[in-house]
Amino acid sequence: MDAAEFRRRGKEMVDYVADYLENIEKRQVYPDVEPGYLRSLIPEEAPEEAESYEDVVKDIERVIMPGAASPACTELETVMLDWLGKMLKLPADFLAGTEGRGGGVIQGTASEATLIALLAARSKIIKLIQADHPDRSETDIISKLVAYSSDQAHSSVERAGLIAGVKMKKIPTDNKFSVRGDALQKVLEEDRAAGLIPFFFCATLGTTPSCAFDCITELGPICNAVEIWMHIDAAYAGSAFICPEFRPLLNGIEFADSFNFNPHKWLLVNFDCSAMWVKKRSDIIGAFKIEPLYLKHDHQESGNHSHWQIPLGRRFRSLKMWFVFRMYGLKGLQAYIRKHVGLAKEFESLVRADQRFEISADVVLGLVCFRLKGSNELNETLLKRINNARNIHLVPCQLAGKFVLRFAVCARTTESRHIQEAWCHISHLASELLQELPH
Amino acid sequence: MDAAEFRRRGKEMVDYVADYLENIEKRQVYPDVEPGYLRSLIPEEAPEEAESYEDVVKDIERVIMPGAASPACTELETVMLDWLGKMLKLPADFLAGTEGRGGGVIQGTASEATLIALLAARSKIIKLIQADHPDRSETDIISKLVAYSSDQAHSSVERAGLIAGVKMKKIPTDNKFSVRGDALQKVLEEDRAAGLIPFFFCATLGTTPSCAFDCITELGPICNAVEIWMHIDAAYAGSAFICPEFRPLLNGIEFADSFNFNPHKWLLVNFDCSAMWVKKRSDIIGAFKIEPLYLKHDHQESGNHSHWQIPLGRRFRSLKMWFVFRMYGLKGLQAYIRKHVGLAKEFESLVRADQRFEISADVVLGLVCFRLKGSNELNETLLKRINNARNIHLVPCQLAGKFVLRFAVCARTTESRHIQEAWCHISHLASELLQELPH
Repeated sequence: MDAAEFRRRGKEMVDYVADYLENIEKRQVYPDVEPGYLRSLIPEEAPEEAESYEDVVKDIERVIMPGAASPACTELETVMLDWLGKMLKLPADFLAGTEGRGGGVIQGTASEATLIALLAARSKIIKLIQADHPDRSETDIISKLVAYSSDQAHSSVERAGLIAGVKMKKIPTDNKFSVRGDALQKVLEEDRAAGLIPFFFCATLGTTPSCAFDCITELGPICNAVEIWMHIDAAYAGSAFICPEFRPLLNGIEFADSFNFNPHKWLLVNFDCSAMWVKKRSDIIGAFKIEPLYLKHDHQESGNHSHWQIPLGRRFRSLKMWFVFRMYGLKGLQAYIRKHVGLAKEFESLVRADQRFEISADVVLGLVCFRLKGSNELNETLLKRINNARNIHLVPCQLAGKFVLRFAVCARTTESRHIQEAWCHISHLASELLQELPH
Repeated sequence: MDAAEFRRRGKEMVDYVADYLENIEKRQVYPDVEPGYLRSLIPEEAPEEAESYEDVVKDIERVIMPGAASPACTELETVMLDWLGKMLKLPADFLAGTEGRGGGVIQGTASEATLIALLAARSKIIKLIQADHPDRSETDIISKLVAYSSDQAHSSVERAGLIAGVKMKKIPTDNKFSVRGDALQKVLEEDRAAGLIPFFFCATLGTTPSCAFDCITELGPICNAVEIWMHIDAAYAGSAFICPEFRPLLNGIEFADSFNFNPHKWLLVNFDCSAMWVKKRSDIIGAFKIEPLYLKHDHQESGNHSHWQIPLGRRFRSLKMWFVFRMYGLKGLQAYIRKHVGLAKEFESLVRADQRFEISADVVLGLVCFRLKGSNELNETLLKRINNARNIHLVPCQLAGKFVLRFAVCARTTESRHIQEAWCHISHLASELLQELPH
């Protein structure tokens, strides 16, 4: 949608809202649809090709309004997570369908998804142990629990451990910044020998520092064999898995208990929208469900996403997924991902063509980690000059003790000329800096 | 703002957004304001009288755009929470100002605020105990911790205890459904004698079932004397405290460590917007702060609300507070609250004038708890008929073993005629029901 169409459609939507408010008393107070009404009104999968805005918006009255906020909000969300799960070719276990035991939910951020997965795993292991040892107290069990993540994992994973009150250990990564099976195995054996209870592993696909991928085809079987909950955090990288050429990065998903990525990061859905799937939704609901009379209703079985998350109130966030998926179509979304990856590769080539610089990690998706050959101090100074100039903005990281600059392609409107201009600017600042140094 | 103005202003805003996107490359990539820039650009308090939309919207370019998303998002939020805190006449301890140790933050829901307060209290007590007993483990301490709330508290309080892994006990309420000082004192003494460590009390002002108020003037000094964190959950009722005649309901706030209510419930701010204040923001930040290199920036001291909440990502929710506070003015907001309370009183009078019915709890704000004199079964049938007719929708509760109907005035456009129609409808259904009964 270009700016001209946005102006037209935006104004039509303002009128729709005003009409709704002016005529609200003509509408029904409470919907008379039956739970599950929505699924049959829309296709089972996202469209391949883009649809027109007109086609999408006319479905508001046909599909959403009869179900008002409830149950439409929950039902559209369930179906949209199925659509998105199919785009990613998730195993069928993760889909809700009409009879599945799995399913998806929108969380606000990946931090919340990790915490929810950790809490569900904690609740599950406590029940499991207490089934055999009814006299063991919850706090006694919690004191022995230990969760794991990559030493490259996002700080929110460590924070989830802090909130849940369980030990969280970082598994060392290999020279590609990936957790491998043997590294996890080693720590598990040590911890079990020390009397601890390993119960949760958070794998990262696309780490924040360098977009590295933990080796889940090795890690998954290890976790499954000893009933450790494997959660996969693919906050940034997950969007790319809708492209067949990037889908192999998700191989091993079949071993996971839960999976999460953020369509708000790279799939054109506005913040916040973090998509999370679980194989057994009873695991997650069982951890949080408390139901007083004022929250009971006649259709308990139709599901209530409040039991899947920390807050109880919920916004109707699946509407924006529905609009985006239909207005781009799967092909449009794939093209968007490919364009960004192409632009990152273009930047990588420019860096590689300059002998003063080095690439610090494999460029797999839209992130390029690079630095000047030389000291950390030199690179810190370069970063400072880049960010002080305020033409572009870079966020650094540490990789194997080295201070590294991160160039991330992430804006909707980025084109080749922006990449070229950015490189030209960086290269110029680097030249100035290097000239100032004593030879 | 009426529908006609909404149409005009909404369309202007669509154009503003389109213009922004079309000309985004002319804007600066990174703001060049200094942290703290925003506070001096706007008044220290919300206006008494309503301002025009034009006055508000022109401040977007003057106040917000120079600070882009960061630091404008954090700074406007801090100032808006100060504005709102002043409207409520919160003690100055809770305000950030330029040098205060307290301050406010927007959470998504009251459930999250309760959880955050509980986790901060947990972290604080652990540090306190470990300072004297460095050898006591965190899990050993947690196993002894006990938190308290009213037996009328919202289910989310119990859920927060579940998530934090601490015992949560319900304090019995008096015949007004309020927790009194002696009831808490009794349980504290028993628990201490049993070797437990009381550390957190969640008081409710305006309970969900009946809008009852815990007696915080009695409870606060008890909590303060023994260093129990007192959190106040006023999710619904809090909005009313902007009116001088309802402000006495908040007396005792000076004893609290944290306080929360939901402007999205009753102060015309769209969902989600749950306002939370703490007296010592270091307590809350200390519980969650983990700072990797990619989250560090040059202005750490200017604050980062990510450390105040579960998710790390944040939306710019203070904008809607800024618009609402200015377009209504304090007087407009007070008038809105008073109108709803008046409508609830009108409904109460209708109920009291009908001998077949009884009022089940004091009507203080916009909620009326009522029932047919008679069995629970009779009232359950009446509720079922009311909700099946779908003209209005009521949610029930249990009060002292009685099944009670709850009539809540909460829509922006409710008028006296809606109250009269609703009562006429209920009264008619009650007549039908009672005629069917054998005499």
